[in-house]
Amino acid sequence: MLKVGLLGAGRIGTVHAGSIAAHPESALVAVSDALPRNAEKLAAEYGAQARTTEAIIADPEIDAVLIATSTDTHADLIEAATAAGKAVLCEKPVDLNLQRARACRAAVVKTGKPVMIGLNRRFDRHFQALKAAADAGEIGKPELLSITSFDPAPPPIGYVTVSGGLFRDMTIHDFDMANFIMGDLPETIIATGSALVDAEIGAAGDVDTAVVTLRYGDGRLAVIRNSRRAAYGYDQRVELLGSEGMLQVGNVLENTLVRATAAGVTGAKPTHFFLERYREAYAAEWAAFVEAVRSEGPMPVGLDEGIAALAMAEAATRSAEAGGRAQNLAEVM
Amino acid sequence: MLKVGLLGAGRIGTVHAGSIAAHPESALVAVSDALPRNAEKLAAEYGAQARTTEAIIADPEIDAVLIATSTDTHADLIEAATAAGKAVLCEKPVDLNLQRARACRAAVVKTGKPVMIGLNRRFDRHFQALKAAADAGEIGKPELLSITSFDPAPPPIGYVTVSGGLFRDMTIHDFDMANFIMGDLPETIIATGSALVDAEIGAAGDVDTAVVTLRYGDGRLAVIRNSRRAAYGYDQRVELLGSEGMLQVGNVLENTLVRATAAGVTGAKPTHFFLERYREAYAAEWAAFVEAVRSEGPMPVGLDEGIAALAMAEAATRSAEAGGRAQNLAEVM
Amino acid sequence: MLKVGLLGAGRIGTVHAGSIAAHPESALVAVSDALPRNAEKLAAEYGAQARTTEAIIADPEIDAVLIATSTDTHADLIEAATAAGKAVLCEKPVDLNLQRARACRAAVVKTGKPVMIGLNRRFDRHFQALKAAADAGEIGKPELLSITSFDPAPPPIGYVTVSGGLFRDMTIHDFDMANFIMGDLPETIIATGSALVDAEIGAAGDVDTAVVTLRYGDGRLAVIRNSRRAAYGYDQRVELLGSEGMLQVGNVLENTLVRATAAGVTGAKPTHFFLERYREAYAAEWAAFVEAVRSEGPMPVGLDEGIAALAMAEAATRSAEAGGRAQNLAEVM
Amino acid sequence: MLKVGLLGAGRIGTVHAGSIAAHPESALVAVSDALPRNAEKLAAEYGAQARTTEAIIADPEIDAVLIATSTDTHADLIEAATAAGKAVLCEKPVDLNLQRARACRAAVVKTGKPVMIGLNRRFDRHFQALKAAADAGEIGKPELLSITSFDPAPPPIGYVTVSGGLFRDMTIHDFDMANFIMGDLPETIIATGSALVDAEIGAAGDVDTAVVTLRYGDGRLAVIRNSRRAAYGYDQRVELLGSEGMLQVGNVLENTLVRATAAGVTGAKPTHFFLERYREAYAAEWAAFVEAVRSEGPMPVGLDEGIAALAMAEAATRSAEAGGRAQNLAEVM
Repeated sequence: MLKVGLLGAGRIGTVHAGSIAAHPESALVAVSDALPRNAEKLAAEYGAQARTTEAIIADPEIDAVLIATSTDTHADLIEAATAAGKAVLCEKPVDLNLQRARACRAAVVKTGKPVMIGLNRRFDRHFQALKAAADAGEIGKPELLSITSFDPAPPPIGYVTVSGGLFRDMTIHDFDMANFIMGDLPETIIATGSALVDAEIGAAGDVDTAVVTLRYGDGRLAVIRNSRRAAYGYDQRVELLGSEGMLQVGNVLENTLVRATAAGVTGAKPTHFFLERYREAYAAEWAAFVEAVRSEGPMPVGLDEGIAALAMAEAATRSAEAGGRAQNLAEVM
Repeated sequence: MLKVGLLGAGRIGTVHAGSIAAHPESALVAVSDALPRNAEKLAAEYGAQARTTEAIIADPEIDAVLIATSTDTHADLIEAATAAGKAVLCEKPVDLNLQRARACRAAVVKTGKPVMIGLNRRFDRHFQALKAAADAGEIGKPELLSITSFDPAPPPIGYVTVSGGLFRDMTIHDFDMANFIMGDLPETIIATGSALVDAEIGAAGDVDTAVVTLRYGDGRLAVIRNSRRAAYGYDQRVELLGSEGMLQVGNVLENTLVRATAAGVTGAKPTHFFLERYREAYAAEWAAFVEAVRSEGPMPVGLDEGIAALAMAEAATRSAEAGGRAQNLAEVM
Repeated sequence: MLKVGLLGAGRIGTVHAGSIAAHPESALVAVSDALPRNAEKLAAEYGAQARTTEAIIADPEIDAVLIATSTDTHADLIEAATAAGKAVLCEKPVDLNLQRARACRAAVVKTGKPVMIGLNRRFDRHFQALKAAADAGEIGKPELLSITSFDPAPPPIGYVTVSGGLFRDMTIHDFDMANFIMGDLPETIIATGSALVDAEIGAAGDVDTAVVTLRYGDGRLAVIRNSRRAAYGYDQRVELLGSEGMLQVGNVLENTLVRATAAGVTGAKPTHFFLERYREAYAAEWAAFVEAVRSEGPMPVGLDEGIAALAMAEAATRSAEAGGRAQNLAEVM
Repeated sequence: MLKVGLLGAGRIGTVHAGSIAAHPESALVAVSDALPRNAEKLAAEYGAQARTTEAIIADPEIDAVLIATSTDTHADLIEAATAAGKAVLCEKPVDLNLQRARACRAAVVKTGKPVMIGLNRRFDRHFQALKAAADAGEIGKPELLSITSFDPAPPPIGYVTVSGGLFRDMTIHDFDMANFIMGDLPETIIATGSALVDAEIGAAGDVDTAVVTLRYGDGRLAVIRNSRRAAYGYDQRVELLGSEGMLQVGNVLENTLVRATAAGVTGAKPTHFFLERYREAYAAEWAAFVEAVRSEGPMPVGLDEGIAALAMAEAATRSAEAGGRAQNLAEVM
């Protein structure tokens, strides 16, 4: 039984608490949060203890920590927890700063402890079905990948300003999805973005609508479309064209009800929002972590993957700032 | 905390055990099974005790029992458990014999204890969305209901011969769905069936493919289509035509992956099989039971509903045997 | 070049005029109508002559007539035109009265002239694709056919009262579709109907909503659902369950535009109405007629097929009037 | 009645011949072709004369010419025909060379004769429905347009080498679609392409798979995806995200038949190929031309639109050659 300390009792921490408690081989023993009351409430729900982050990391009885705190604390906590001998599952990103993330990786390597980064969409069974079909050669050789990722509505401007920008905050998931499906990193990245949704986002120097093109060493292409706003909800689609066909993962709808009236034939909207759309994926992610710790095997999504996605976000940010100039990923990494 | 004894540790009992254990207000404390080894295994998984059915029913510490044993024991166990002061959730049907079911109801009434029948599809969120839309008047006045219910493959002939026949075993769910959606019982029932899937089913005097037409007192109509075999899997659809539109609930697919190749554009098959398709519905059913017990409110699906569906199955059986002669439901009930 | 006289210049006659004129091997030379002005207008459009029905039938230069007049004139005109040596394509039904239709057939047989009945849906490429797939064994042995046929709105009550009733007027197309797909006539027919859409229809002794079950000699089943009203438009679907799968023909939508907004994801409505939905089928029907005449081959849908569908309508009418009593088709035919 | 001479009796000329002949206000009077036999065959089919291109242009009885010859003759024939006083509908592109196209426009302006360029997709009713919904404000302010355009298979390499390259030959339709829907020209164009489908295409200096990003002056974005090969057929989709929703036009399928078997649930492939997919659009294009000539109104798609699409192709070609460097469209035009 893996004894787990959860750092961060916010929205995403709450989801992870459920996964930890529900897994037959892990137990939630302690919870910390910047607001102790949050930790107490969540701990009580699962019969765990509310403690300080420091106490959790220092406790030799705790085998693993799940880091679901604010982004600016991720790298420090990863380092502290691995130094204390713990296995770590940390929410993305490692850090908004690529150099800091690399330094974190170097520190972790010295401890020899396993770290997984919470790029949870790799564990979604729909995308996994696409990946499996592609790997099985069902569409021949993949040639052109398309990822659509629209949020229902922009976050508060206060969040935007500390988010690192659209590419580091939102597109990072799509970069990792591209890496997952294409099985390789792109050679060049071209990004174009605009602030069309919210003028405040533009005023803050960020964009809310973007197109990113990835070009691989062997000529394959990928394109990512992002928007901070889709009136119909959370839009998450992937499409892969290959030499012998195409694979598409569409949205998971709220339900299968269709209404046919004089106004048209109307189906349900996509599942809203990411905690609901990826609920199963979060549980599968946790199960993969537990299994990797148990078997002492490689982490399914490690620091290397987290840093690669971050470097792509860095390159995209630079490209967009340079009016869409192609960035060589190798120069960024 | 509702202390629950589970009678029956087979396939469906195992599903219920998970629901009982996962619910924050109920605890699985004891499990029995005709094969004690099954009970022991399931009990161990949830930290419950393996006991005899008699001991569970006799234990005053146990508040409620969930009956998931073979059909021929349902009525006896319902009577015993309610006589012992327990709340009961019993899998459908109450009994294959309508008279026995009525006698059971009479016995239960004397105990004053609440009994719920496990007609789980009422708790499926897709069908509930249809019901809610219909009740909200989105399609005006309902006029014609259509229920499609095809199993992937026929059960073993040994099961068929003790099942009470297609209408009591399989269509009973569709009868209850019709009652749920139409909010009334039909006046007449016409059924036609054939043994097309398996000649052995025909030799056993049963049918495996059927069409049942229901006619309501106000002229509304419903039609149920059943087959014991659908090569593409478990097909569960409901469609309701009303004066101002139509509502349709389609199948829940295994995933949203679509493959487009030279062979065509292929989507996933329906979720296979009922334990998977209705997993959420089983949990919702249990939650509704717990809530009804807690609030001492009426059972959401009681013995009356179980007996109504059974009477419709009886009428359909008679109709099919009489070459499709219309049966007056009132005469059967 | 087949010289064609068109009898009847109404809505459906106008559609046929277009097919006749557009076909490279047929020419529209004359048009008649009860209202001469209608004939003149349509004739002018295609460079044909407006004449009387009698003159067209008497003209030895005219090779074929297309009868698109009111139903009560069909049998007389078929007899007159074949007696005059012409090939005939006549709109359905042959007559509302089964005996009159049989007498017409007897008269036609004596002339040796070919007569085709306009059961146009057999020529729809979507249904033909289903038929071809079924005949190719793609779903094994067919077992259960389902036909959905809803009109957008009921016709004027004046039309209803002379229509022969729902089964002869509307379901007749579905009976023929069943015959087309199943390749056999049913043994028994059970029909249930209600007047739910329009009380005037009920007052006129007719129904507007119905379910008809067909049972074949080998146990196969078919079910037809009819309504005179679907708020979302003209609903025309066919579904065939077989031992190895299912075939479905869905509606042909007005266009492929989908709108995703806060209100849901809305697609176009079915193509409205039958002249538009079956436009291609009417042209294909005409082409099949021309080809059969040219090759002196058998008519693809002859008087036998027209009479079979009519007999089924007769049986369904009797069944519905007898509260859903099963009718033996052989007794009616 | 508009008397029309058709220059070019190939595949596309044959389609236009049908539209010209079917339109009630136009008549096909003459056909020419580089291979006189082709012209004779097509002319015979419609009762027209086979003549030389020179004779057709010189004939004062002919009101309009439709130019469906090889691309390298377009500009010369447009100039000659307008100089001879004829209205012209010319297949795209005006010329592969932007300067030549501009010179052609200058020459035409002097004649005062109307010229329409055959960018036929604007007349597709599906895309028109999208345009109408967008213009009606159904999705608020458009922000991100996506156009998917995949051919079933690459053309012969001999065609590729004279085609002007993917962007001038294939993407030109998508550029025009973007102009049609966005109602504006983009400010910058970024293109990336690869030869993944056919190494010979790469050897010829062309690409067969591409992503093109358009950025408008107001920050709106568009992305075009192209491939010369889709194993499942001709893929033509458009998607427009706006501030209040999304509009999508999907593929028009061969038929509505769905097969559900143990292998999955399979629908028909997209309509194959462009002559079939856009058959109605070609007729609508011709009708728009006839109407514009008749009313002496502006051409719905004139030389300006043809040149704009060509300039975008030029910019995209340069961008792809420069490794995805953004091109300012104003500098090219």
